[in-house]
Amino acid sequence: MNTQPQLKTNVKKQAKCAQQASKLLGLLSATEKNEALHLIADRLKEEYAFILNENKKDLLKGQEKNYTSAFMDRLRLTEERVNHFADGLIEITKLKDPVGNVESEWTLENGLNVKTIRVPLGVIGMIYEARPNVTVDATGLALKSGNAIILKGGSSALHSNMAIISVIHRALKQTKIPVAAVQFIADTDRAVTEQLFTLKKYIDVLIPRGGSSLIETVIQKSTIPVLETGVGNVHMYIDKHANVQKALSILVNAKTDRPAVCNALETVLIHREWFTKNKDVLTSTFKKHNINIHGDSEVVQNIPGAVQAEEVDWSEEYLSLDLAIKIVDHTDEAIYHIENYGTKHSEAIITEDEQTAQLFLQTVDAAAVYHNASTRFTDGSVLGFGAEIGISTQKLHARGPMGLPALTTTKLCLSGAGQIR
Amino acid sequence: MNTQPQLKTNVKKQAKCAQQASKLLGLLSATEKNEALHLIADRLKEEYAFILNENKKDLLKGQEKNYTSAFMDRLRLTEERVNHFADGLIEITKLKDPVGNVESEWTLENGLNVKTIRVPLGVIGMIYEARPNVTVDATGLALKSGNAIILKGGSSALHSNMAIISVIHRALKQTKIPVAAVQFIADTDRAVTEQLFTLKKYIDVLIPRGGSSLIETVIQKSTIPVLETGVGNVHMYIDKHANVQKALSILVNAKTDRPAVCNALETVLIHREWFTKNKDVLTSTFKKHNINIHGDSEVVQNIPGAVQAEEVDWSEEYLSLDLAIKIVDHTDEAIYHIENYGTKHSEAIITEDEQTAQLFLQTVDAAAVYHNASTRFTDGSVLGFGAEIGISTQKLHARGPMGLPALTTTKLCLSGAGQIR
Repeated sequence: MNTQPQLKTNVKKQAKCAQQASKLLGLLSATEKNEALHLIADRLKEEYAFILNENKKDLLKGQEKNYTSAFMDRLRLTEERVNHFADGLIEITKLKDPVGNVESEWTLENGLNVKTIRVPLGVIGMIYEARPNVTVDATGLALKSGNAIILKGGSSALHSNMAIISVIHRALKQTKIPVAAVQFIADTDRAVTEQLFTLKKYIDVLIPRGGSSLIETVIQKSTIPVLETGVGNVHMYIDKHANVQKALSILVNAKTDRPAVCNALETVLIHREWFTKNKDVLTSTFKKHNINIHGDSEVVQNIPGAVQAEEVDWSEEYLSLDLAIKIVDHTDEAIYHIENYGTKHSEAIITEDEQTAQLFLQTVDAAAVYHNASTRFTDGSVLGFGAEIGISTQKLHARGPMGLPALTTTKLCLSGAGQIR
Repeated sequence: MNTQPQLKTNVKKQAKCAQQASKLLGLLSATEKNEALHLIADRLKEEYAFILNENKKDLLKGQEKNYTSAFMDRLRLTEERVNHFADGLIEITKLKDPVGNVESEWTLENGLNVKTIRVPLGVIGMIYEARPNVTVDATGLALKSGNAIILKGGSSALHSNMAIISVIHRALKQTKIPVAAVQFIADTDRAVTEQLFTLKKYIDVLIPRGGSSLIETVIQKSTIPVLETGVGNVHMYIDKHANVQKALSILVNAKTDRPAVCNALETVLIHREWFTKNKDVLTSTFKKHNINIHGDSEVVQNIPGAVQAEEVDWSEEYLSLDLAIKIVDHTDEAIYHIENYGTKHSEAIITEDEQTAQLFLQTVDAAAVYHNASTRFTDGSVLGFGAEIGISTQKLHARGPMGLPALTTTKLCLSGAGQIR
């Protein structure tokens, strides 16, 4: 008896095709890849009406399902947004192609020449939620770095994604990049995604982009190496010696500038002495910026409107105007809290004491650690890395914003004249 | 009802202790770490008699269990071997410490200073078979790169490993490195190892060293990122335009110099034209060097003594004087075979045709690709990387021989004066 579920979609075949395509793609020049990205960008702009039309189907379904307005906003496409995706591809053409770069070269005493050459990873699997922009961004970054890509987008954006992919495929037919280099899994059956997790022979890396439960599922189930991205339970520690003006403006910026992004602030740890002196200005700041406070008992007693934080608040990535606050007695206590609850994304200290700042910068284990600056700077384009495929919160392979180099690896090429050992 | 097995060993506690120790260790200077390695080396030399005594217990058990002579040889310690381990630690003290290195530094227009600093991974989990030398080597490399290490060695070497660890711990007591930075799991219960796979919160990377089934188990079961090492189903393609002398001497060297290591040759793919011209000299070469041939039908017909290869032979890592041979009609066929059966370790082409060589070097996907040289050079110390913790056959994080830098990651440290976005 066949106990395997019969899957409608042959993901294995798609992965094999992607791998074959990656071999041709990996040998293309930067110019050939850039030409293809320009063509895709042109086509996206030309065919925006078709894409918006398909997007409407997703929006209608979303309304029926009563999705939140934030969700619907991310799902909604407009001519301007499609143009913006297309312009993103043009930006990617301007990035330096890392592929083929000779990273180092040396010759052994026996005359054997050794080169370390940068090469594409091969096939990238991207699993993401209902954000059609990821379909375009991820494809652009993968192709520019010489990689094939398999996309599995959230089912709520299915029509939008399929429209975008059909435009990309039509464009690729006129380029040197094989159409098979961009694979889209249209089947929304969970078993199909789970099959993806086992295709280690064909897929070199899986990148989940979305909430922590999506990422956790991929880590638990995948035998393919995973690049973890984007979960940011971001902390800011306001030290005893913090400048009040800096602390408040950084707090407000990191919390309210774009609350739904991963580098937004979620928990503030405040030194007791500083808190005692500044509770009134904190109160007025929170009020002015509509920040909802979940605090420990001391905070609740001193900040009108603050609600008692539960244990879960320390782990929560609110992605809203909510903020958790805990009072601490020492820098060590703040560091210990961050160790316990942080997600190794971005962490900040506000202090005028250089020694305390150095201790924090050295000790806190995260992709980005800040002294007297907003955590909102953890962003590839702001830091000068160019477009990013995600912000890695893990330590292996790539940490922080991942641009094109994170989608490549190296190969030793050794040329000899018969050398033996 | 409690369905969890009651484990004698508290691996979670060990992992937590290792993580705490790693935080202190990560801040030590190269000098402090080198002093500790020197002290461990001295102690190992002083206490060799104790170690050999404990090793005898493992050897006796091994005899009872009728282990192979190769296995017993790897297990057996002598004063010379213990001295050799200790000298290996001294070699590690001479390697440049990557920790603390500022990889890049720049300032944004708003004055925010950004540094990329090299930092230890944190805690390394090492799972390996009955080779006591790994206990010393891995500890030395981990400590020098500022990492704590959790060792789970093969049960057949238990007494030897525990003796070595007790010497290391006694030495560490006199150094700045916390004793807890080196954890050894003495429990041979498989459930204990499996518990290790789930401790993602405390362990940053797992490195399995051993046969492919050990590695496969770790990949299947671990949620901690894994660095795959050492399985080498190594190929050599003898092209139509191969120089006979080079081809034969490289074949003999790669197969017979040390058949049991991962960079030893396992399959030779030979162009039909070259094979037809050179089958007699191949026959005499194989005979002279006691190489046992498993070939396809054409090989069996032409090489006296060759046995028919089964499908399994193409995937087999013999680690002996056995060799699989297949006749091919094109370079593409050779490349396709390597794609199908290779383990992305080391692959070679022998040819005088530069264009074919370039095609092979560019197309074959492996950590090291050779033209006219023996695959035996895939070795950290030979290539100038220093001692290695393994040879990575994966593409993420580290590829090929992994020295100290592979045991580190980077951290962005951003220092400002109140910058907001």
